[in-house]
Amino acid sequence: MKKFVNDPADVVREALAGVAAAHPDLRVDLAEQFVVRADAPRTGKVGLVSGGGSGHEPLHAGFVGPGMLDAACPGEVFTSPVPDQILAATKAVDGGAGVVHVVKNYTGDVMNFQLAAELAADEGIRIETVLVDDDVAVEDSTWTAGRRGTGATLLVEKIAGALAEEGAPLADVAAVGRRVNELSASFAVALTACTTPAAGRPGFELPDDEIEVGVGIHGEPGRSRQKLRPAKEIAALVTEPILTAEPIASGEPVIVLVNGLGATPLMELYVMFGEIARLLDAAGVRIARSLVGDYVTSLDMAGMSLTVCRVDDELLRLWDAPVRTPGLRWGM
Amino acid sequence: MKKFVNDPADVVREALAGVAAAHPDLRVDLAEQFVVRADAPRTGKVGLVSGGGSGHEPLHAGFVGPGMLDAACPGEVFTSPVPDQILAATKAVDGGAGVVHVVKNYTGDVMNFQLAAELAADEGIRIETVLVDDDVAVEDSTWTAGRRGTGATLLVEKIAGALAEEGAPLADVAAVGRRVNELSASFAVALTACTTPAAGRPGFELPDDEIEVGVGIHGEPGRSRQKLRPAKEIAALVTEPILTAEPIASGEPVIVLVNGLGATPLMELYVMFGEIARLLDAAGVRIARSLVGDYVTSLDMAGMSLTVCRVDDELLRLWDAPVRTPGLRWGM
Repeated sequence: MKKFVNDPADVVREALAGVAAAHPDLRVDLAEQFVVRADAPRTGKVGLVSGGGSGHEPLHAGFVGPGMLDAACPGEVFTSPVPDQILAATKAVDGGAGVVHVVKNYTGDVMNFQLAAELAADEGIRIETVLVDDDVAVEDSTWTAGRRGTGATLLVEKIAGALAEEGAPLADVAAVGRRVNELSASFAVALTACTTPAAGRPGFELPDDEIEVGVGIHGEPGRSRQKLRPAKEIAALVTEPILTAEPIASGEPVIVLVNGLGATPLMELYVMFGEIARLLDAAGVRIARSLVGDYVTSLDMAGMSLTVCRVDDELLRLWDAPVRTPGLRWGM
Repeated sequence: MKKFVNDPADVVREALAGVAAAHPDLRVDLAEQFVVRADAPRTGKVGLVSGGGSGHEPLHAGFVGPGMLDAACPGEVFTSPVPDQILAATKAVDGGAGVVHVVKNYTGDVMNFQLAAELAADEGIRIETVLVDDDVAVEDSTWTAGRRGTGATLLVEKIAGALAEEGAPLADVAAVGRRVNELSASFAVALTACTTPAAGRPGFELPDDEIEVGVGIHGEPGRSRQKLRPAKEIAALVTEPILTAEPIASGEPVIVLVNGLGATPLMELYVMFGEIARLLDAAGVRIARSLVGDYVTSLDMAGMSLTVCRVDDELLRLWDAPVRTPGLRWGM
């Protein structure tokens, strides 16, 4: 294993120390292990908290800041954050208007966020939970009952974060988050497996001439192993399941995220974006906005995911609203 | 080789087609192979053009937009752009106030930009060239007479771009670019070699337990091969040569770029940032601004580089000025 780590057991805490050093406009609680906007809590503002296993950076800590998350709770690598950690972050951002938990649909995350929500409720904090389950590759998976939560998490956090920033009430912020999730579909493909610092070797075996189609963001098995093939054919493999799962009307606008899983050069992601744009265009889908880059990663996995989210003018307005986080920034 | 490509010979053009599809506020000339701001040329504004071999994305095409480059000329992978291509981009951005060429110090780039500058001068366009040679690892290298140009290119493009956006004259824009280069120093380390699509195999051999200290962005040899070691020791290996090469006064503010070379997880870059921040702090250096992420890459190389640039209030003001490009964006 070749990684920039000291003791693998310390990697998450040491990375958080780096986040603290790099981003003075964020506050990092190294003891409770969460990242929060320096100006939290903001009185009267709905708080937005997410979290999940580490190894998917910039998700989630990289999306903390004005216009997006108020706090993020990174668990250990590929491991859910614990309830006390989530509770501490929730209390840190509670400005009296309630807190929305954005939770990717993995069994551990769901359970621990639910426990934290109950503990927070006991302390008088109103909690709404938005479950993200956009990955259409498989119905149930290694750590999932139901679909996995992947790339749409970014869209949920951005759009719900924008509405929360405007001062919308708890129910509305949760509702728009749920709506974004319902309108989104994702599908990923892996060229290589990823290696956690603790394990020190790839999480699964993938022959030199094969790809994992429908892979999860922890390397969970997808729909099939297939032979490596040209980019345009792989683009079809990731686009078609989304068009099948998500009924997109002709001319309907969408936000498209072509996301790198960690070790894929940006040049290749743009090749894929070009191919996917062609396929979407042929299907009558209108790309209203797009992102190309590493946003929801799987450590050092080579691969990519496609997320498509159907949008209307209101969702586009919220998408375009100013955001200032380490991983996503515009308008301020 | 596992990559998202079709015919490796087409990868640069196909990636540019993806850039065109993803960024409607840029114009991509697929025939002449350059990327330009959609509103170019802007009358009376100094144009800023850069370019170099592909494989370092988002550099340079990802830095085209208001507040940074007016145009970028991507060559084939790890290959200089040709003079006609540079000339076409130069003409596309010439608004009558002259054009600055930002050139990384590699023999092919220097030669081809010089030829293009002469051709442009023949057509009545005033050209100034800013040569970037910030890499303090080695004095001469595989494709270099003198030091290599690496991470400081981003800082030169951002700061000179901000001054050009304000309407400063040609000589001033070139002067601030040269000043940023003089105040910058970089040093890189590779954990793995990178693989070009055309070659299909790693560009050099690096044993499983060794790292290349002082590596170039094409995998050029550095100062030494050393045994893999903990992050804090690698941080010292990249920080010390910079502190030796660049005389930084106690308390002097700097911009720090901790840059991933392509396949290194962001989590590890933050671990490195934390270690480097500690070392800089111990040396009395004040981190005024920082960037952590993949900005000047080497395809799928695992590794990182550190760039430190001494700054004053004016350089910080230009750094903070609004920028809107695919790879760097704030304030708009």
